[in-house]
Amino acid sequence: MHDIYELPGFRLDSGAVLDPARLAYRTYGELNATRTNAVLFPTWFAGDHTSNEWLIGPGKALDPREHFVIVPNLFGNGLSSSPSNTPAPHDAAGFPAITIRDNVRAQHRLVTEHLGVERLKLVLGCSMGALQTYQWAVSHPDMVERALPFCGAPRTSPHNAVFIESLRAALTLDAAFEGGRYRTPPLAGIRAFARVYAGWGFSQPFYWEEEYRRLGFASREEFVRGFWEANFIGQDANNLLAMLGTWQDADVSATPGLDGDIERALGSITARVVALPAERDLYFPPEDEVRAARHIPHGEVRVIPGIWGHMAGSGANPEDAAFIDAAVRDLLSAPVPAAGPAAGRRAETPARL
Amino acid sequence: MHDIYELPGFRLDSGAVLDPARLAYRTYGELNATRTNAVLFPTWFAGDHTSNEWLIGPGKALDPREHFVIVPNLFGNGLSSSPSNTPAPHDAAGFPAITIRDNVRAQHRLVTEHLGVERLKLVLGCSMGALQTYQWAVSHPDMVERALPFCGAPRTSPHNAVFIESLRAALTLDAAFEGGRYRTPPLAGIRAFARVYAGWGFSQPFYWEEEYRRLGFASREEFVRGFWEANFIGQDANNLLAMLGTWQDADVSATPGLDGDIERALGSITARVVALPAERDLYFPPEDEVRAARHIPHGEVRVIPGIWGHMAGSGANPEDAAFIDAAVRDLLSAPVPAAGPAAGRRAETPARL
Repeated sequence: MHDIYELPGFRLDSGAVLDPARLAYRTYGELNATRTNAVLFPTWFAGDHTSNEWLIGPGKALDPREHFVIVPNLFGNGLSSSPSNTPAPHDAAGFPAITIRDNVRAQHRLVTEHLGVERLKLVLGCSMGALQTYQWAVSHPDMVERALPFCGAPRTSPHNAVFIESLRAALTLDAAFEGGRYRTPPLAGIRAFARVYAGWGFSQPFYWEEEYRRLGFASREEFVRGFWEANFIGQDANNLLAMLGTWQDADVSATPGLDGDIERALGSITARVVALPAERDLYFPPEDEVRAARHIPHGEVRVIPGIWGHMAGSGANPEDAAFIDAAVRDLLSAPVPAAGPAAGRRAETPARL
Repeated sequence: MHDIYELPGFRLDSGAVLDPARLAYRTYGELNATRTNAVLFPTWFAGDHTSNEWLIGPGKALDPREHFVIVPNLFGNGLSSSPSNTPAPHDAAGFPAITIRDNVRAQHRLVTEHLGVERLKLVLGCSMGALQTYQWAVSHPDMVERALPFCGAPRTSPHNAVFIESLRAALTLDAAFEGGRYRTPPLAGIRAFARVYAGWGFSQPFYWEEEYRRLGFASREEFVRGFWEANFIGQDANNLLAMLGTWQDADVSATPGLDGDIERALGSITARVVALPAERDLYFPPEDEVRAARHIPHGEVRVIPGIWGHMAGSGANPEDAAFIDAAVRDLLSAPVPAAGPAAGRRAETPARL
């Protein structure tokens, strides 16, 4: 159950135009009279708005009795504009490249023009949701009061890109893929893709300790099939590739006007930022966010301890979910940074889209 | 330039018989009159005896003026018996599964029956060479005085197996593979295999720091093609799969008589062991060897510092090569453990093949 916000003639960073672009979203709770309780929570790779619901609900950090939570779906995820649901010529392999900034620009219009929100009390997200969170903080310092990226980074590291390219190589190798013009789903390719992912999504000790038993799987092989393959087998291959492309190119310093200067990009963030990398994350390792936080005026890093690796951010492990929930509560109750050097920078750097 | 030792009617752990099995090897230096200077240095995945030569030579830790260095080639590597060089019915996809113990058993016959060596001053090896090193120490406590496994472990961890399975999934997905009965090499599969490997072989900061420039590559993509793809593109696909199988099943506790008891297996090692895991190794992480060393009576771990990850053991990085060279020198000059509890155990556990 979700709504669609249509953006007629939506021009992408690539120059291509989606007419319209369709942004699927769901809201939880109500905007208060002073319009000060809006929280934006973009989705992760191959997820949708329901993927975020473990952190939303009565008694949870994002309590809809208190907050107005907006969850926009990532372009390419099959609900928002995607290869699988866009008419020719932008269907399937004809779907244009989409950037994190394209996502944020569409979300900005949804939030401001459609939902009447001018300030965001918090932007948060996991993994590709974290990439969007950082981009929001850089593109709209005037709107974002707090940001909580988890299991992510302000830009996709070169190593992470190598991982992404290996996923792409596995998926597209399937003869059934036919350059993206497949008539039947390239299931063998998606299974190989899932097997590559399986090594990266959790940490080495997750497998040593057989933590997958906590997810109901009796063996490693059952876990790889029942969790990883099952998670991706129903996805459209071109959708997966579209999202991979968005992920691989993520970089807040590529925002127009910043000339690829990552320190300047991070230095322009005025929000209070609490980044939560996971201790054993293999493709968004904590050092990415530690390095970034040095340049964010009100930036802080709290490492999610444990062996779940990247999937610590999934909400599936109760201990990790509780850690994230507590951090969200803390940040929501923390004061917004006072005007200072960062605010001064903000004046120099108005909204960058 | 290498020699071949033939083992007629060589029975494998699987029950299959290679008649003969052919063990390719090269020796460096001469066995001294007292037969006390022999060093065994098995090879790694997809390498051959020349891959080990960076540590062998005048002035190096393995100086052939002083030591008699024996380098046996791993079964499946294309020089020893392999899918690519064995007659039907054991050719290509018909090649039988080979274990680390099969390799060690063949090497034991080469060393004792052919080369007249009864004691090994040192056994050492990197990665799959380390798997063989541990197996030697467990199977032949009466022969192995010192062992130096680097970038390896006494058994392949479950996470490592997930990585291996992803390599296999990528390689065999190529339609040209044809279940191993390919007529032309499945090059696209090998390239995908190489791309998966690229994310695992080095650490995350290796890519951040663009360390590949030290190997002569100007960009990440050039590195993935020029190093990873180039490294594997000339290999036979079935050979790669044969070695992957050997790697995946490695486990010293599966040695007959040990009933899968890893602590007992490690406790039976009488050699002085110095294990060198690499600090950022993503598939043989240091914790594997730290955990193992607790149970080895004369076991010690020295972590190779730095960001080269698994490839720290390749010899390609001068700092890592110097670290390993120094550790080998140290161990060669260290005394052999005195008879004690470990020797007592040795008496209880004679050679296990």
